Amino acid sequence: MIIPLDSKDLPDKWYNIIPDLELDMPPLMANGGYPLSPRDLEPLAAAEIIKQEFEERKREIPIPHPVRELYTRWRPTPLLRAERLERRLGTPARIFYKYEGRSLSGNHETNTAAAQVYYACEEGAKRIVTATGNTQWGASLAGICNYFNIKCTVYMVHSSFEEKVYGRYIIETMGAEIVSSPSERTRAGKKSLSQDPQFPGSLGIALSEAFEDAYTHKDTKFCWGTVMKHVLLHQTVIGLEAQRQMRRANALPDILIAAVSGGSAFGGLVFPFYRNRSRKSRMVAVEAAAAPSLSKGQYRYDYGDAGGLSFMLKMYTLGHNLIPPDIRAGGMRYHGVSPLVSALYREKQIEVKTYTQRQALQAAIAFARTEGVIPSLECSYAVKAVIDEALACKRKKEPKDILFVLDANNIELAAYKDFLRGEVEDQPLSEEQIQAALEDLPPDDFELPT
Amino acid sequence: MIIPLDSKDLPDKWYNIIPDLELDMPPLMANGGYPLSPRDLEPLAAAEIIKQEFEERKREIPIPHPVRELYTRWRPTPLLRAERLERRLGTPARIFYKYEGRSLSGNHETNTAAAQVYYACEEGAKRIVTATGNTQWGASLAGICNYFNIKCTVYMVHSSFEEKVYGRYIIETMGAEIVSSPSERTRAGKKSLSQDPQFPGSLGIALSEAFEDAYTHKDTKFCWGTVMKHVLLHQTVIGLEAQRQMRRANALPDILIAAVSGGSAFGGLVFPFYRNRSRKSRMVAVEAAAAPSLSKGQYRYDYGDAGGLSFMLKMYTLGHNLIPPDIRAGGMRYHGVSPLVSALYREKQIEVKTYTQRQALQAAIAFARTEGVIPSLECSYAVKAVIDEALACKRKKEPKDILFVLDANNIELAAYKDFLRGEVEDQPLSEEQIQAALEDLPPDDFELPT
Repeated sequence: MIIPLDSKDLPDKWYNIIPDLELDMPPLMANGGYPLSPRDLEPLAAAEIIKQEFEERKREIPIPHPVRELYTRWRPTPLLRAERLERRLGTPARIFYKYEGRSLSGNHETNTAAAQVYYACEEGAKRIVTATGNTQWGASLAGICNYFNIKCTVYMVHSSFEEKVYGRYIIETMGAEIVSSPSERTRAGKKSLSQDPQFPGSLGIALSEAFEDAYTHKDTKFCWGTVMKHVLLHQTVIGLEAQRQMRRANALPDILIAAVSGGSAFGGLVFPFYRNRSRKSRMVAVEAAAAPSLSKGQYRYDYGDAGGLSFMLKMYTLGHNLIPPDIRAGGMRYHGVSPLVSALYREKQIEVKTYTQRQALQAAIAFARTEGVIPSLECSYAVKAVIDEALACKRKKEPKDILFVLDANNIELAAYKDFLRGEVEDQPLSEEQIQAALEDLPPDDFELPT
Repeated sequence: MIIPLDSKDLPDKWYNIIPDLELDMPPLMANGGYPLSPRDLEPLAAAEIIKQEFEERKREIPIPHPVRELYTRWRPTPLLRAERLERRLGTPARIFYKYEGRSLSGNHETNTAAAQVYYACEEGAKRIVTATGNTQWGASLAGICNYFNIKCTVYMVHSSFEEKVYGRYIIETMGAEIVSSPSERTRAGKKSLSQDPQFPGSLGIALSEAFEDAYTHKDTKFCWGTVMKHVLLHQTVIGLEAQRQMRRANALPDILIAAVSGGSAFGGLVFPFYRNRSRKSRMVAVEAAAAPSLSKGQYRYDYGDAGGLSFMLKMYTLGHNLIPPDIRAGGMRYHGVSPLVSALYREKQIEVKTYTQRQALQAAIAFARTEGVIPSLECSYAVKAVIDEALACKRKKEPKDILFVLDANNIELAAYKDFLRGEVEDQPLSEEQIQAALEDLPPDDFELPT
């Protein structure tokens, strides 16, 4: 069953969850140990983005007309019921998925790229800079930059540069500048290279380099792929559309599921349902055993980047110096989780499930072979949780409604091929690795303003 | 500018061009030299497909409800105006493209896969079989077969099996059976292997093997990716939607452009405009210099497959034994062109343009860098023609409206990467190769019924 939505039903506002949270969000914290002010972000981001990042009262933020017009290229996206998967599992549950696989890059990331690049261009930026690990964010951003006719520089984690070749081909074809990180272009990169010339890089270092690039070039703005509040804000188009579509299907989600690394797909799907929770839905965040920030991390201030160049965020974190195992889903390797998602988890509003990559790939193949779509590697983790919940419904004979968000972009298919040949290993983060990473956490004894 | 279309405006009928052609279509011809009857196709295709293939009177064929519902997963597709490309070229022309890149496989092929697999399932088939060269057709079909829960066997040209790896990964992940062709599974394959064990395969041989598989298994139906009338019929959803969208944009296409190998994207876009031609549009078919069937072929009966297993079609052909140069766009290497497109070309209703792969890739990169989307390798040929026509409008100061159809699936990105590194050569078919291939044509002196 497919529940489409017409272009007139494309939301014209994003949903800001903050006014509806029954808690005070801890502020971003500057390196000096004082709360970050909007002005501190000016060298990095467009003024409108900063305004959104600090917006605590307005529930609804209008989507600018040009962004909404660009959205119509792939939005509204369809809501589908995975009836074939349900039958294969023999579950009484109904499984719905919000299909984000038809955006320009096949990822939900395009939703925020469109907004961030638009605002940067409106405010006169001449270049966009970012960091990418799994390449999908970089590929999304490079395409959107071409659409808005603005230059783009992507700091790509060196190991991804060598391994995630299809994503790199996209970025190259789009004409964006790719810098393999760590690089000689920045002080952060030089420092890393001087310590270890063979370092395969990390998203943390790539972020430090991209921040430094933006700080040192007036015409350049940094764009975030996830974690930040404004990114999750932009992604709420997913959940807002899904709400309308679920109503049309006479369904209310009992269980909301999304893969979580930075947390933007999760927030995008779940937050609008959090607002209108006439019936309480379970919210399940699915993380990789290779970087289990929610289940094994600590809730405290930590840097978003390895170099500690930007600012600190209160979040569940495994420590900004974490180098997680080199699992195939590069997007699942971040050391922290969005402060908004972290706060909800802290308040026990969210459950977490943790899976290995073999569990995830196995589930994703079952999905492809029933529904005809190959999940992105990141979303394969969500699919595993969906199947487990559906099987629990079967055991308990409970006809629940499950809703999750699915990207599909065919970028990292080699992981599926290797899995089918038995060539993918599970690579969970060990307790020793977790303890070692947590030891690197910065001091967390700020006096917060009350 | 984006011109979306709502799901209620998704066509509910396909358009059959045959009643509107001012010519008699030459029949398909059985090997014995007599016109093929519908019964002759029964071992290969579903009864409803055969009916459509032979339908000469009805202009409109209803789209079955389950196919239309599946279409809503990616249709209606958006019509876009490539304003950034126009500006880059400085042309007064308006360039519109019908964007088929958000289907399950990113190709227009999914439109006919949905219909053919549906009819086969309805009529009790247990397995679908096909042949694929560029892998995109195979990938589209494998996904749709999962959707309808029917087994799928894909005979894949051996050289594609080795080279078009991403398409193969998709088909494997979907769980379809892949047979590298020529194979030991069929007499046609064995014969080819006995003649040359190192033969890299051809779409012609793969087709022979798939036909033989269907002929020898009662529960199995063959699906065509292009060439046949019913395939072009299914693809007319593209043009029917585009007509409505062009009207909304207050535009009438002066020039209609599509890449042509078998001809299904071309027919799908162009035929509905042929019907309602209040103003005469130029129709431009773009072929590869590696297999220039229209410009260098002969208009006569030839086999669709190399083994001559099935039947003959009256078409422009370079000879069914042609082995074209191994260009990157596997989908542009077929020896013939759809009889419908061939007949229109014969009647001088269609123009043809021929380009090399370097010309095509160069144009496609210009497109990606202005519009933010990477064309499929096949569609890159169309993009080259579009740019040339737009530049001609610039020289003549003519503000014409150009419309073309664009697939984008990120499957064969290595071609772009290699081109950017200067590692792609032009490989046009030489005059000697053309003459040699044409010598292999079968006798063409049937007495046709009048």
